[in-house]
Amino acid sequence: MNKVNVALLGLGTVGQGVVKILQNNKNQWVKRCNAEIEIKKVLVKDTHKEREVKLPPGVITSDWQEIVNDPEIKVIIELMGGIEPARTYILEALKHGKNIVTANKDLLAEHGEEVFTTCQEAVRELYFEASVGGGIPIINPLKQGLLANNIEKVMGIVNGTTNYILTKMSSEGKTFAEALKEAQELGYAEADPTADVEGLDAARKLAILASIAFHTRVKLQDVYVEGITKISPEDLAYAQKLGYTIKLLGIGSSQDNQIEVRVHPVLIPLHHPLANVNDSFNAIFVQGDAVGETMFYGRGAGQLPTASSVVGDLIAIIKDLNTKSTGHSACSCYETKKIKPMGEVKTKYFLRLHVLDQPGVLASIASVFGKHGVSLASVVQKGCFQDVAELVVITHQVKEKDIQDSLEIIKELPITKEIVSLIRVEGME
Amino acid sequence: MNKVNVALLGLGTVGQGVVKILQNNKNQWVKRCNAEIEIKKVLVKDTHKEREVKLPPGVITSDWQEIVNDPEIKVIIELMGGIEPARTYILEALKHGKNIVTANKDLLAEHGEEVFTTCQEAVRELYFEASVGGGIPIINPLKQGLLANNIEKVMGIVNGTTNYILTKMSSEGKTFAEALKEAQELGYAEADPTADVEGLDAARKLAILASIAFHTRVKLQDVYVEGITKISPEDLAYAQKLGYTIKLLGIGSSQDNQIEVRVHPVLIPLHHPLANVNDSFNAIFVQGDAVGETMFYGRGAGQLPTASSVVGDLIAIIKDLNTKSTGHSACSCYETKKIKPMGEVKTKYFLRLHVLDQPGVLASIASVFGKHGVSLASVVQKGCFQDVAELVVITHQVKEKDIQDSLEIIKELPITKEIVSLIRVEGME
Repeated sequence: MNKVNVALLGLGTVGQGVVKILQNNKNQWVKRCNAEIEIKKVLVKDTHKEREVKLPPGVITSDWQEIVNDPEIKVIIELMGGIEPARTYILEALKHGKNIVTANKDLLAEHGEEVFTTCQEAVRELYFEASVGGGIPIINPLKQGLLANNIEKVMGIVNGTTNYILTKMSSEGKTFAEALKEAQELGYAEADPTADVEGLDAARKLAILASIAFHTRVKLQDVYVEGITKISPEDLAYAQKLGYTIKLLGIGSSQDNQIEVRVHPVLIPLHHPLANVNDSFNAIFVQGDAVGETMFYGRGAGQLPTASSVVGDLIAIIKDLNTKSTGHSACSCYETKKIKPMGEVKTKYFLRLHVLDQPGVLASIASVFGKHGVSLASVVQKGCFQDVAELVVITHQVKEKDIQDSLEIIKELPITKEIVSLIRVEGME
Repeated sequence: MNKVNVALLGLGTVGQGVVKILQNNKNQWVKRCNAEIEIKKVLVKDTHKEREVKLPPGVITSDWQEIVNDPEIKVIIELMGGIEPARTYILEALKHGKNIVTANKDLLAEHGEEVFTTCQEAVRELYFEASVGGGIPIINPLKQGLLANNIEKVMGIVNGTTNYILTKMSSEGKTFAEALKEAQELGYAEADPTADVEGLDAARKLAILASIAFHTRVKLQDVYVEGITKISPEDLAYAQKLGYTIKLLGIGSSQDNQIEVRVHPVLIPLHHPLANVNDSFNAIFVQGDAVGETMFYGRGAGQLPTASSVVGDLIAIIKDLNTKSTGHSACSCYETKKIKPMGEVKTKYFLRLHVLDQPGVLASIASVFGKHGVSLASVVQKGCFQDVAELVVITHQVKEKDIQDSLEIIKELPITKEIVSLIRVEGME
C-alpha cells in the first residue's frame, strides 16, 4: 500500500487540528486518496511543551534540517504563519522536491510571486486553501470550478473578528470599544487587535483572492485599506433605517483590464446575501460573466475548520503524487492588470455631517457637491442638539476623488461643525 | 500547441451556452488550461434547426457513430438529459476511450453505479458538476476540498422552480396555484410542472449529493419525496409568525453508518442561512465534523450558469489529459450504508388541525400524542369559524412513525374536523 510521509511546520492551534483529523480518521485515508498518511516529523520551537495531541517519540523536532533533508517526506504543511522563517523554509523545501500546503496569508500576499515561481521551477505543488476563508472551499473553486468565467467581482467578509464586532454593534447597539472587549474576552480578537480591526488581515486575503480571480498578481501594498474603528452605533442605526447593514468587505473588481482592490466598511442592502452573514462567519461572494452571483459561506477561522482545508489540500497533493502529476497547478497570474488608483474608484457614499441649523445650509453644501459632479440620491436633515442639525446624505455613483475634494471644501465652510462619517455603499446597481 | 477536440451531445439551452463560453473566450483557454479547445462535433436531432450560435460547416451532425468513432475526440459533453439514449451514448463513449462531462441528474441518480463502474474500467474521467446546483461549485468541493471531513449533513434548496413559488407565496401571500402560474409565465416552471413541484427533481439531486457526501450509493428510489402542492399561504403566515419560513429541502444525513435521504417542505428558522435563499436561487448547506457549517449559493439553473459548470469540468479533464492522469477520479462510494426507513426518522413537526371548539378537545388530542411518546413544544388554539377551532402544534423531536400513528387516531376522533397541514421543522437543534 502507498504511504505518504508528511511533515508539519508548527504545532499551534491549527497544527494540532491537522493532527487530530489525520489521527481520528486513520482508516479512511486509503479509501479517500488511495494512500496511508503518516506524520513523520513536526517542527516546533519548544519540544517539551505540553500539547493537546500525542505523537509517537521521535516525531517532534526543533531541527529543520532533519525535515528538509529527509527524502521520504513528500509533503510539508507549513502552519507557522508570518513571513520568516516560513518563507525560507518553503523555498528550501520546494528546492528539495517537497510539495507544500500552507495557510500563510502574510507570505502569499507579500511574496506570492517568489513562492510560486520557485514552485513552478521545482515542478511541485503548492496549495493554500486555508489562507482565505478558513474552512470554506474558495481558492480551489476559483482556480477550477469557476475557471470558465471572467470574474467581474469578488467581495467577501474575510475577517471573523470584525464581523463579530459589527454584528454585536448592529444587533445589540454596542459601541466599537464594547464589542471589541467582548470579542477579546471570547478569544475572537487578539490582545493587540490592530491587524484585524484596521483591515490588514482582510487586505492580505483580498490580495490572494484577487490574484486568482483576475489572473494578475495583487500584493498587500496594492490594496486600499480602511478599518472599522470609526464606525459608531449611530451609523449602524441609520443604515438599518435605510434598509442596510454595515460590513467590513474586501472588494475586488475587474473592468477593461484594470482592477480595483479595497478593504473598507460598507453599507450593504439587507437583502444582499452578504448582509446575513453574521457573528464570526465568513463568506465570499463571486460574480462571474457566466455563473452570475455565487457565494461561499462558512467558518473563516478556528482549529478544525482551518485544518479541514489543510487536510483537503493534502489529499489533493496525494492524488497528484499517486498519478505522478505534481507540478501542473502552476501560478495562474498570467496577465498584468493595472490597479486603479483609489481616487478613480466609483462608488456610492453614505455621509453624515453636523452643520449649523440655519437657512441656506443645505444649499451651500449641495452647491459644493454640484460643482464637483457629486449627485445626491437622498438627503435627510434633522435637528440634532441646540443649533446643530444632522445631515445624512446618500450619493449616486461618484468618483472617490470628487467626494474627497468636495469634503475638503465643505469641512472649511463656516456652517460645518463636523464630518461625522463617510461610508461607501455596495451591492446596489 | 496542445489542442483538445470535444463533442457536444445536444444543442439546447445549455449546449448553446457552452458554445458561447468556448467561442467568446477563445484566446483564454491556452492560458487557463494549456490547450486550445475545439468543438469538433455537435450531435443534434434536427440538423436544419435555426440556433442562437453559429458553428462551422460539418460540425453539426445527427450521426452518433461519427462522434464515437472519431479517435481525435477526447471529451464528450452530454447535455441531452433523460435516461436514453444518453445512457447508451455515455457507456459507449467511455468504452471508446472518451472522457465525459455531463449534467444529467436523471441518469446519475438512477444508473450512477453502472456509469461509474464503466468509467473506472475504461480508466477515464466523468465529471458532473452541473447535475446539481447549476453553476454552484458543490460536487467538486464535496469530492475534494471537504474530503477531510466526515459529512454529517447535506441539506439544500436544489430546485429553483419550487423556491421561486415558495418565495412568492411567502413575500406576496399568493396561493400555490397563483405562484405556479406566474412561474410558468416567466419560464421558471414547465407546462407540466410535476417533476419540480412534486419534489422529484430535488430528489434526483439529493441522491447524487448524498452519494458523494456519505460515500455510499444512493438512488432516486431510496429518497423519500413530498412536494409543495399542499402548502398554503396560511401555513406560510403561521411559519412567519413563529420565526420561520417554508422551503423545499433535500436533506441527507449520516449517523452510525445509517443515512437519511428525504425531500419535503420544511419550516426553517429565519436566521438559518438557507432561509434567506430566495427566488430561483439554489444553495447547498453542508455540515462536516471538522469544517462545521458551510453553504454554497448561486444560480441553480439557466443557460450560462449551468454552462459555467460544464466548461469548468471540461477544463478539469483537459488538465488531466495534459498530465496523462485521467482515470483516477474514481467513484467514491466505497461504503455501503443502510437507508433509514422514513418511519424511523426523527424530526420536529408543525401541525395544524381544525377541531370542534369545545372543552376537553385539547386534552383528548394531547392524550393521544402522550400515548405515542410525542411531546409538544408549543400549542396555540384559537377560534376559527363558527364552532371550529384551529390548533397549531409544534412538537419536540419525535419519530415519524409515532406522529403518523398519532394522527391516524386523531383523524378518527369525533372532535377532529380536519388535519390541515403537517410540515417538518429543520435547522433547530
